[in-house]
Amino acid sequence: MTTTTTRTIGFIGTGIMGAPMAARLVKAGHQVRVWNRTKSKADSLETVGAEIVDNPEEAASDSDVVIVMLSSGPVCDEILLGSSGLLKAMQPDATLIVMSSIPVETARRQAEEAATHQIHYLDAPVSGGEQGAIDGSLAIMVGGDTTSFKAVEHLLLTLGRPVHVGPAGSGELAKLANQMIVANSIATVAEAILLAERGGANPERMLAALEGGFADSTILRIHGQRMIQENFTPGGPSKWQFKDTQTAMAFAGELGLDLPVSTLVNSLYEKLVAQGDGELDHSALIRQLKRHNV
Amino acid sequence: MTTTTTRTIGFIGTGIMGAPMAARLVKAGHQVRVWNRTKSKADSLETVGAEIVDNPEEAASDSDVVIVMLSSGPVCDEILLGSSGLLKAMQPDATLIVMSSIPVETARRQAEEAATHQIHYLDAPVSGGEQGAIDGSLAIMVGGDTTSFKAVEHLLLTLGRPVHVGPAGSGELAKLANQMIVANSIATVAEAILLAERGGANPERMLAALEGGFADSTILRIHGQRMIQENFTPGGPSKWQFKDTQTAMAFAGELGLDLPVSTLVNSLYEKLVAQGDGELDHSALIRQLKRHNV
Repeated sequence: MTTTTTRTIGFIGTGIMGAPMAARLVKAGHQVRVWNRTKSKADSLETVGAEIVDNPEEAASDSDVVIVMLSSGPVCDEILLGSSGLLKAMQPDATLIVMSSIPVETARRQAEEAATHQIHYLDAPVSGGEQGAIDGSLAIMVGGDTTSFKAVEHLLLTLGRPVHVGPAGSGELAKLANQMIVANSIATVAEAILLAERGGANPERMLAALEGGFADSTILRIHGQRMIQENFTPGGPSKWQFKDTQTAMAFAGELGLDLPVSTLVNSLYEKLVAQGDGELDHSALIRQLKRHNV
Repeated sequence: MTTTTTRTIGFIGTGIMGAPMAARLVKAGHQVRVWNRTKSKADSLETVGAEIVDNPEEAASDSDVVIVMLSSGPVCDEILLGSSGLLKAMQPDATLIVMSSIPVETARRQAEEAATHQIHYLDAPVSGGEQGAIDGSLAIMVGGDTTSFKAVEHLLLTLGRPVHVGPAGSGELAKLANQMIVANSIATVAEAILLAERGGANPERMLAALEGGFADSTILRIHGQRMIQENFTPGGPSKWQFKDTQTAMAFAGELGLDLPVSTLVNSLYEKLVAQGDGELDHSALIRQLKRHNV
């Protein structure tokens, strides 16, 4: 650890993802000030060496960098904006990194708002789940200007694999595309398994045969197994997957873009959730395809 | 090489895939008799140590195993069946391995026909292309009975990674599922790239950001790059991809199975080919989605 790369970081939101991320930053030698609405969720970070503070502004006021890992766009807005908001509390020339998954338009609006306070803004949503947060192996999709990205890249490398995707909002856009690909891939693998089962092949052996070929994917290996074993303990609940595909479709709609396969898969998730399977893992989409083919 | 595993093998069809496969079997120490309709295509195998014969029956008559790597179901039928067919020429208790991609029903019918001649039958189509054939790294999807599979598994291991998927026809069924997943994955990655491009992100950086996450796949890495670079030199021509998805849809139809995503992607390939893009690589499906969104 060199002193030149040691930063004072405000960390807002220490839930399932935020807590292990903040802990990694502390262990990397940074001075981390943590705030969480439910303070008890931040307590474990004190033993690691983080400072627990009483309000978001306190976490922000003396920090070079503020990281936000809250649950949704409106919650982010509530903390960032408004009369006692984070943006007002932050020092000019500090950097705000929003790592929550929020709508593209919300990220773009927040970036504009940040600029009026001379705050650098990056949207940097992640993929990889709790284990990725613990291991520091998250896929981190970053939107914002290049200079701001370069200035904090070393911090993000502590949390995973940051890739700069484009201007503000692009990180969130990449996350949407990620979720869209996941949904379509689950539908695709489900249809292949159904074809194998009904056609008289052993679907588990079929998946094994396909590994390593052009049809191979993370979804084939992980979610394909879940479908065959009918193990639908989430993982990622179908209701969240549906929320993501809905958000992607709404954004495509704003662009005047018709994406026929994604539109169809979105409607399949809508039916799945309507049938009461929203709490099941998103691989449960195969149940909807089976109901469709009784 | 032990003498107990050395076999006399008839090899029928030494095209782009068949020639390097036959060469691997020769180099593994087996006695290989090769026949090809255009004899000159088999010539290079003579220098490796294969015996070139004048007709399929000669390749079959003294062989323990006959491997067929011809271009289509009807061509296979023509060589296998009929008055001077391979099945009549083969010794009882020999094994016929059809490694061509042919319809499931054709494989099942051939298996029944083979049984009447006391011939063991396996359908064992491959995925992995010419390079996989040269390297011996083909994905090999095998249908047939377990005893017959076990008896020739060591031969197939010389060619790649054989997986026994179920009874006769199951290998071809797995291959269909493989092609269906490939088609749907190409459509999915194309839609994600379109969303990124139109939404103002850098699609190449987006693909880089998605690698290693749940959205990762062979298609994302290989065909995603082709789409961004608009490099549509095949690879696998779209007209063949369309033939495969059509075959898959016809088979699903026979089972009374409605696979909505695959049906939609099949219709997208139909339009792509109708627009004159049949000779382009199957990743050119993004062109159809772009025309759809002018």
